Amino acid sequence: MTPPEIVRIGHVVLSVADLAASKRFYVELLGLNVLHETPDGLYLRGVEDREWSLKLETGSAPRVRQFGFKVGSEAALDQVEALARAEGLATRRESELDRPSMLRIQDPFGFPMTYYYPAVRHPWLLQRYDLHRGPGITRIDHVNLFCPTVGDMAAWYQRTQGFRLSEYTEDRDGVTWAAWMHRKGNVHDLAVTNGAGPRMHHFAYYLPDGSRVTQLCDILAGARMEARIERGPGRHGISNAFYLYLRDPDGHRIELYSSDYLTVDPDFEPIRWDRDDIRRQQLWGGPAPKSWFTEGSVVESFDGTGSPVRESALSGIPTYIS
Amino acid sequence: MTPPEIVRIGHVVLSVADLAASKRFYVELLGLNVLHETPDGLYLRGVEDREWSLKLETGSAPRVRQFGFKVGSEAALDQVEALARAEGLATRRESELDRPSMLRIQDPFGFPMTYYYPAVRHPWLLQRYDLHRGPGITRIDHVNLFCPTVGDMAAWYQRTQGFRLSEYTEDRDGVTWAAWMHRKGNVHDLAVTNGAGPRMHHFAYYLPDGSRVTQLCDILAGARMEARIERGPGRHGISNAFYLYLRDPDGHRIELYSSDYLTVDPDFEPIRWDRDDIRRQQLWGGPAPKSWFTEGSVVESFDGTGSPVRESALSGIPTYIS
Amino acid sequence: MTPPEIVRIGHVVLSVADLAASKRFYVELLGLNVLHETPDGLYLRGVEDREWSLKLETGSAPRVRQFGFKVGSEAALDQVEALARAEGLATRRESELDRPSMLRIQDPFGFPMTYYYPAVRHPWLLQRYDLHRGPGITRIDHVNLFCPTVGDMAAWYQRTQGFRLSEYTEDRDGVTWAAWMHRKGNVHDLAVTNGAGPRMHHFAYYLPDGSRVTQLCDILAGARMEARIERGPGRHGISNAFYLYLRDPDGHRIELYSSDYLTVDPDFEPIRWDRDDIRRQQLWGGPAPKSWFTEGSVVESFDGTGSPVRESALSGIPTYIS
Amino acid sequence: MTPPEIVRIGHVVLSVADLAASKRFYVELLGLNVLHETPDGLYLRGVEDREWSLKLETGSAPRVRQFGFKVGSEAALDQVEALARAEGLATRRESELDRPSMLRIQDPFGFPMTYYYPAVRHPWLLQRYDLHRGPGITRIDHVNLFCPTVGDMAAWYQRTQGFRLSEYTEDRDGVTWAAWMHRKGNVHDLAVTNGAGPRMHHFAYYLPDGSRVTQLCDILAGARMEARIERGPGRHGISNAFYLYLRDPDGHRIELYSSDYLTVDPDFEPIRWDRDDIRRQQLWGGPAPKSWFTEGSVVESFDGTGSPVRESALSGIPTYIS
Repeated sequence: MTPPEIVRIGHVVLSVADLAASKRFYVELLGLNVLHETPDGLYLRGVEDREWSLKLETGSAPRVRQFGFKVGSEAALDQVEALARAEGLATRRESELDRPSMLRIQDPFGFPMTYYYPAVRHPWLLQRYDLHRGPGITRIDHVNLFCPTVGDMAAWYQRTQGFRLSEYTEDRDGVTWAAWMHRKGNVHDLAVTNGAGPRMHHFAYYLPDGSRVTQLCDILAGARMEARIERGPGRHGISNAFYLYLRDPDGHRIELYSSDYLTVDPDFEPIRWDRDDIRRQQLWGGPAPKSWFTEGSVVESFDGTGSPVRESALSGIPTYIS
Repeated sequence: MTPPEIVRIGHVVLSVADLAASKRFYVELLGLNVLHETPDGLYLRGVEDREWSLKLETGSAPRVRQFGFKVGSEAALDQVEALARAEGLATRRESELDRPSMLRIQDPFGFPMTYYYPAVRHPWLLQRYDLHRGPGITRIDHVNLFCPTVGDMAAWYQRTQGFRLSEYTEDRDGVTWAAWMHRKGNVHDLAVTNGAGPRMHHFAYYLPDGSRVTQLCDILAGARMEARIERGPGRHGISNAFYLYLRDPDGHRIELYSSDYLTVDPDFEPIRWDRDDIRRQQLWGGPAPKSWFTEGSVVESFDGTGSPVRESALSGIPTYIS
Repeated sequence: MTPPEIVRIGHVVLSVADLAASKRFYVELLGLNVLHETPDGLYLRGVEDREWSLKLETGSAPRVRQFGFKVGSEAALDQVEALARAEGLATRRESELDRPSMLRIQDPFGFPMTYYYPAVRHPWLLQRYDLHRGPGITRIDHVNLFCPTVGDMAAWYQRTQGFRLSEYTEDRDGVTWAAWMHRKGNVHDLAVTNGAGPRMHHFAYYLPDGSRVTQLCDILAGARMEARIERGPGRHGISNAFYLYLRDPDGHRIELYSSDYLTVDPDFEPIRWDRDDIRRQQLWGGPAPKSWFTEGSVVESFDGTGSPVRESALSGIPTYIS
Repeated sequence: MTPPEIVRIGHVVLSVADLAASKRFYVELLGLNVLHETPDGLYLRGVEDREWSLKLETGSAPRVRQFGFKVGSEAALDQVEALARAEGLATRRESELDRPSMLRIQDPFGFPMTYYYPAVRHPWLLQRYDLHRGPGITRIDHVNLFCPTVGDMAAWYQRTQGFRLSEYTEDRDGVTWAAWMHRKGNVHDLAVTNGAGPRMHHFAYYLPDGSRVTQLCDILAGARMEARIERGPGRHGISNAFYLYLRDPDGHRIELYSSDYLTVDPDFEPIRWDRDDIRRQQLWGGPAPKSWFTEGSVVESFDGTGSPVRESALSGIPTYIS
């Protein structure tokens, strides 16, 4: 059976403690663009995004509320709904600003996934270079999730939703430690990394080139917010990205990402990395900080209670909070 | 009926008068990488290409012999063959180094198109930064063709082969003057421009960023080959590319291209440009040289005689040389 | 006799018709930083400048009122005053915001030169990257002046004020067509170009690198002010600068300039360029527009009447307006 | 008394165990240019250098043999010789390829300093962009030396040779921990850092911009020599440099350095950094590795025996080996 047409990662919804502090970070320093602003929410986007791609909401605790995927048609929403129900997953229909028709599910691994079509599209800012600020963040690129059962999760998304594997990390026993999967033809829309979860490791925006990544380091330093830099700049072996990882005021991790490659060839062979090859993480050498392996954002159940999803350690399946 | 799965532009085959001079230009100065070399041919690629993407062959006159598209399967070759025959087009099966199965057709507009699957894939050079030379050309990106009947040609490729329109130029009477079409999810694999044809306006390789485009200007200047620069550097309104156009030793035009955008959204609306809006060509202002509108590479019939395809002026359908 | 210690170019004072339009251009688009603002004047600087380096004043006609050079001590002011008087040149002492002690002279070629020491110094913005805007203009670099007697003027500044020649353009008869002279150890503080004058050809600010030069093209294009781009981007043979020339709302020409070289060696031999070698102007090839040779800003006498200095054509000495 | 005219840092002479390995590192990967090659020595330079600036010699142990400063005249050599003798320092005249007249001294802190004038000058490679390799290293910029008596050494070079202080690190008791001094009008030619010595902390070459610094990381990674990267890339608070530190095959530390600022103003006030302000070392945050504080190259006496200079720990004056 043809899987539903998932087009690409579309949005992330985060709850934050202090919307003003988040606006200072994401808008004034990182230079994301405000598309809509309400008393409790900020809808942001990169200069190439024609839709909002990050929503920040006031919340009592820092959480991830949604990972949103754009699909190709309203029929695709029905198709995802059907496959979710067939697997006994909870689903719900919702609407949101500029997103009249969203299907939400809790995936088998505990993640609150949203699928949407259509979306209200706005004039982009790509060629309004006079309005670009800071490093000129381009577009949403991917999310990377902590899950204790990477192999299962990666297989599920490939089987049910047609995600294609671009790269993966394996140990000598053939156990998958991390997987990068895409729909849009670059390295990833969705990555899964071994760790206690369900948690979000990070979400990522694309930048035009590496010099913009280092410019952002300078901007943060100028504002005396260099402590927000958790890792980088550097070059991943995996994905070939020129990367920078920041922690926002609530501790959510955002990656600024540049320079990956095309994966549209049907005979593209996923790239295997050995778990013990340090180059997969950093071509230039040097280890990641410990926090990079252990800290992630709590994800929220979509049952309306705002509860976090119960997490599992490095094995087993997460159980939803009843 | 579902069109055949065209994946992306895959290669260009050019005949050149002096292979050594071409090697000096493409390999030593532009920094393309030699994958294979034979007495009469050079097979080149960018650092991300896993297959050869440019073949230069010794020939008595500068010609374009093939525009090659990678397809998704051998079945797709059969499908293209069937649709070509249904339209009364000549077809031929051939093989080539690393391309065991190629279907060649002469399209209704006179262009010698090749479709291939599979291709021998080689380790890429993307992360062998120590081997990159010059501006580090990344990958083949697109071809742009002169045709006197742009609207017909653009419609044919959309209808028969599933090309998707990203941008187009129109006059006030609704006549299409140029069209950009893609399969791989960026701005184009195939563009068509109004002009006497069938001719090749240019073929293009992707560069990592604009600083590499200007670096190439410096390299050419250093070698006292600044006369090879025909236009640029500049920023196209159409495609948002940071561009540079060069003429190779035989007069073939190559574009070095950077920074376009994603077009994977199914509700992407093609961008319309007015023919009289100079910004479509150059956001920074300033006209293109006359040669840019009038000069293009002659294309060759694939009948084995090496004859050029008879050309038409700005209307009518080209007629093949009998 | 040891010449007075001229340190570097320090400022330019321009009169402009509409201060608000100039602020939009210089501050909002180019990203120069406001140090002081009065009803009739704007004092601007780059992020490395600790002093103001550009003053814009409301005036009835677009003029250049001062070219300012920083000197090494108050004694150097006296020394310049003495040498000016010895040559029968008019001089005047003035003060200005942050410049308590300025010596003004009209040089033998008609230019209103100012020498100053000390200057009030302000905290720089170099490491306040969060406050940089647009391309992050760094510092004032040089002025370039039209004069019909280039050889005489270049000789006078070398002889009386210790300017050092870095590059020059000569024809086959040994006539100097242009000269680049410095005090600060890079290519120039003061350049003289053959043309009707005294006029200012341009003043220039330094940018960190070429990518910032092209970023500024994009910014102007985004604001639909691409018509302000007169020439470039390109690479000068002379000075090796990666350049861009703009015309401000009053027609004053500003160069954005990057990547020159050190000239501190005492055995540095000035680089000679043949007048007919196009590479001196543009390593990448291509001619300059005609306006680049014929249009310059009128300079103003410093007699308090606001009169322009009477100009000469391509020979002879300018005569002051009585 | 006017100090001798020291112009700038001019060269470093290093002994290395395996000249072929050093050539691979400095020439093939870093892209320095070979000016002369002898059986036992390599004379290298950046693309802007008109003279050789790095000499590598085969030696039994990795040592620094000379730090060379270009002076303004032969008279300046005599002047340095006189001041050295007045302080009881050993001196010697030598000649070398392209350096017919060199004065060598062992300074009071144990460093083997060379002063030279004139030098044979060669056509530069600055505008031969076609010959640039790798990141296009521009010119020698400075040396940084470990000395246990920083305050004394910095004072001595300012007093006797007219070095000017640009930045310094101090603790709360007013003890100088490090000092940056220049002659050429940028941040430094000579820096002194607290540590056991006399040792060389590093020598540095200038690169055009930060993107070239990160390009070099990629090149080293591509060649699987990422272990040569000791620190960076990053942004120093001090000097504002975009930096990278490498260790060569013998452990000598080389910095690739970009983007500092002008210091020619006579009223430039040296910038004070508190020893405990981490931003002085890395604006982006994050500590330096321990090796950066403790490891340096042994310097060699110039008595012809090839002996290392006896070192002192963090106080006291080094004693020469008799």
